[in-house]
Amino acid sequence: MLSTMMDTQLSLNQFLERAGQLFATQEIISRLPDKSLRVHTYADYYRRTRALASALCKLGVAPGDRVATLSWNHHAHLECYFGIPAAGAVMHTLNLRLAPAELGWIASDAHDRVLILDDILLPLYRQFADLHRFEHVIVFPFSGAPVDPEFLDYEQLLATADPDGYAYPPQLETDAVAMCYTSGTTGRPKGVVYSHRSTVLHTLVGVSGDAWGLRSQDCVLPVTPMFHANSWGVPYGVILTGAKIVFAGPHLHAEDLLDLMTLQPPTLSLGVPTIWMTLIQTYEAAQAAQSTRWRLPVGMRSMVGGSAVPEALIRAFAKHGIWLQQGWGMTETSPLAAVSYLKGDLQHAGETERFSRAAMAGVPVPLVDFRIRADDDSDAPWDGKTVGEIQVRGPFITGSYYEVPVTADKFTADGWLRTGDVATMDELGFVRITDRTKDLIKSGGEWISSVDLENAIMGHPAVAEAAVIAIPDPKWDERPLAYVVLRAGHTVSPAQLATHLLANGFAKWQIPDRVEFIDALPRTATGKFYKLKLREMFAQNN
Amino acid sequence: MLSTMMDTQLSLNQFLERAGQLFATQEIISRLPDKSLRVHTYADYYRRTRALASALCKLGVAPGDRVATLSWNHHAHLECYFGIPAAGAVMHTLNLRLAPAELGWIASDAHDRVLILDDILLPLYRQFADLHRFEHVIVFPFSGAPVDPEFLDYEQLLATADPDGYAYPPQLETDAVAMCYTSGTTGRPKGVVYSHRSTVLHTLVGVSGDAWGLRSQDCVLPVTPMFHANSWGVPYGVILTGAKIVFAGPHLHAEDLLDLMTLQPPTLSLGVPTIWMTLIQTYEAAQAAQSTRWRLPVGMRSMVGGSAVPEALIRAFAKHGIWLQQGWGMTETSPLAAVSYLKGDLQHAGETERFSRAAMAGVPVPLVDFRIRADDDSDAPWDGKTVGEIQVRGPFITGSYYEVPVTADKFTADGWLRTGDVATMDELGFVRITDRTKDLIKSGGEWISSVDLENAIMGHPAVAEAAVIAIPDPKWDERPLAYVVLRAGHTVSPAQLATHLLANGFAKWQIPDRVEFIDALPRTATGKFYKLKLREMFAQNN
Repeated sequence: MLSTMMDTQLSLNQFLERAGQLFATQEIISRLPDKSLRVHTYADYYRRTRALASALCKLGVAPGDRVATLSWNHHAHLECYFGIPAAGAVMHTLNLRLAPAELGWIASDAHDRVLILDDILLPLYRQFADLHRFEHVIVFPFSGAPVDPEFLDYEQLLATADPDGYAYPPQLETDAVAMCYTSGTTGRPKGVVYSHRSTVLHTLVGVSGDAWGLRSQDCVLPVTPMFHANSWGVPYGVILTGAKIVFAGPHLHAEDLLDLMTLQPPTLSLGVPTIWMTLIQTYEAAQAAQSTRWRLPVGMRSMVGGSAVPEALIRAFAKHGIWLQQGWGMTETSPLAAVSYLKGDLQHAGETERFSRAAMAGVPVPLVDFRIRADDDSDAPWDGKTVGEIQVRGPFITGSYYEVPVTADKFTADGWLRTGDVATMDELGFVRITDRTKDLIKSGGEWISSVDLENAIMGHPAVAEAAVIAIPDPKWDERPLAYVVLRAGHTVSPAQLATHLLANGFAKWQIPDRVEFIDALPRTATGKFYKLKLREMFAQNN
Repeated sequence: MLSTMMDTQLSLNQFLERAGQLFATQEIISRLPDKSLRVHTYADYYRRTRALASALCKLGVAPGDRVATLSWNHHAHLECYFGIPAAGAVMHTLNLRLAPAELGWIASDAHDRVLILDDILLPLYRQFADLHRFEHVIVFPFSGAPVDPEFLDYEQLLATADPDGYAYPPQLETDAVAMCYTSGTTGRPKGVVYSHRSTVLHTLVGVSGDAWGLRSQDCVLPVTPMFHANSWGVPYGVILTGAKIVFAGPHLHAEDLLDLMTLQPPTLSLGVPTIWMTLIQTYEAAQAAQSTRWRLPVGMRSMVGGSAVPEALIRAFAKHGIWLQQGWGMTETSPLAAVSYLKGDLQHAGETERFSRAAMAGVPVPLVDFRIRADDDSDAPWDGKTVGEIQVRGPFITGSYYEVPVTADKFTADGWLRTGDVATMDELGFVRITDRTKDLIKSGGEWISSVDLENAIMGHPAVAEAAVIAIPDPKWDERPLAYVVLRAGHTVSPAQLATHLLANGFAKWQIPDRVEFIDALPRTATGKFYKLKLREMFAQNN
């Protein structure tokens, strides 16, 4: 039996129209290269975004064409988020932290016809311009300097377009709106293509009370780059709810973020653990030195993800009245697939359990199915102990990669995405990531979780950061090696660390045999610990 | 360009599976006919609901078949909400406040094959049993008494079913899950048929922060009947978020609700204004008499709708730390289409504006388009002044009625639903209902809003309730007549009411010429003022 409901197609254009009508006076704030703040209203945003769509159509951009962006977080990038789909085209965010050769390869693979980029990123663009020819290169004068006449000027394009007369092209909800390449550690990067439908559904799930809990009264600071899994989807949620948004531009140092938070206190922020780690260290050092330069935004919620969140970090922020909440996902999952929150059945949990739960990857969000697959392809029970690969399924989970044949190492025969993350799930549905498949340490036939070790080591007061890798061992096959960065002015011996780990419940055989103290950990383009580099480092030196 | 996302179909079955996995220990509480409370866990609920689906299939219920319910609010009705769709069938909620002849007609029109009803409603069923033959009648032993062997016993069916072995039939998201007849004041009732898709989308919008703001930690008391627009959709939101739910059963008197709220304090409740009106009057009378029997749940949010919410009612609750929020919608809109909340641009609004905004119908929810159509079919500007009919469009708005041809009085040529409600919209997107089309008073060529008059009259301290109708007038065409119910022990003269209205900004010509004091206002089956009856009353007496 069919329902009598209208068959209205889900669409980002509906979000944009609604935001223009309902939230005209709300603010969008961008930090410019000179660190000043530029304020736009949603009314400005609405007109500029429709002007962008109109300008792209005038340039000959046709439905389905890829329009790339190479930009920091700011209002013009947000205009691209809605303006490119409003033209019927597909926004392809290029990750400015990748090597030029990789950027060129990705732009070619995606068949990008147009590039919109920040003027301050022209030096990067020039390094891969020879590898892929964009038909049009549009420069956003982020610094305020005049745009070189060899390029199109973003502001001039908008100024000469007709936002009022613009009509959206017809659109189905399965049409693509954005694409993002995964930073694969093996093989070539692969494109994930989001649709109106997947983005609308992901946004509705994201704004729900137990995920971002996003409301019109919020002020959001996304420290997550807009070129990384669409800044976790939060820009779409902001436009849907009409919240205020503050963009940090290119200024991501702890001091800069603390300045910005003091000036424009956010109620919700999003970022990777390493950013929050340096932020709290910088803030506490300033406090110790009696500085009154910064105020932390008390009551702020923060979603942290991208890599495991150490409990020590959550506790450090809680002391200042800020609650970190772990989210888990990946480019392939839009990305929010699980989130840690205080479920109804944990309302009476004590402090210890609250913190340990907050440090888990969380519970599956609405619309996403989870299963934990053991090595023999059976479903692992949700007992908090049995380990297996997380596999997921849902309307905002990718079912393939752009122009790449579906392979058994990424998708199961029955249509689930193999995430490559290894985890347990418990009776309450909490996912605890024990490792990336390739990061597990197999010692004497037993698995050791490098993530558990890292979190425990980072819980030691002398440690700023730690990463654990597997190294070959003639007797045990593999053994853990810990790379440790000390806090300034602190010191700890490997023996003291071992005592600390034993006191934290680790078995003797799980303790790393070797600890190497280094000045900084190498990171991937998305800010995660780059273990591949550590393994190479180890191979060269041994 | 197509996206790479999975084409997973939206489904209530996914909600049910997720709830069974994630929220096993959460509670569902029902008040039984003897006023005792029965507690189920979500784990119980999950097994019982799948058992119901399995039992229905065994009875021969096929995909698309209609299964009717005739029930109060309780756990078994909630089992029907998910168990009937889980069998591939369509839940048809019968409104137990309708006349037996109407119930029989509606069951026939819908081709209901099965009826599930409360044992305490058998006397009502027997009054329309001759008008429509159900193939199976399943009796839920709500009172605890044994079920008459001429019927199927709900508990016995569940006890002999196999929930573990049950497999959901294949399903598309456009398949029907529920149907509900509108209580039209003109013509026959008409069926609205909801789908998996419309229900999932409506639920996601409903739980969002600025609508119900529903979270796993909430305790929800839906005073709205489950046979009326699916209790405004909130049972679906509860199962999605894993919140606790408390059902009042057949006990809807103010004293009973206050008892229940004292025993199981809700954090979110939903109801029509008249329920809250008698509730606060009863509570305040008890307070004045020094009774300590009841505690109001301080901090509770309450969504109020179904008819206009007087500002005086919102202020009365605010005094006790409870915030009423108006929602607007109808059976045809799933129903939540607009909701009043403190938008970001109202954060600094003063108390007067906050209260006046709370008493408005609110702003359009995500995914729903609004327009205000003037008499000449032009779009009225959102200026807070220009009046027109609200027309809506969206994926959970009905585009037709069940087995009824689409007519121009209900749907526009370009596919919008004509709601019949007359309103203004202002610059901030707030809808202010001025009247049902048929309730407008046209006096001397000018429209008078009966709703505005009612709200203002109910703002007078001596008035409990008021309804205003149009009466024929030889000179002015129509003039307003006010029916007024006084609070116990209070008195007010028509002249004093006129002074009160003038002080509230009404023009002299807008003041009702006549005021009739009566003991109680007639109500429709859904608790709204029954103006049709008032007009008949007037016609008979004049």
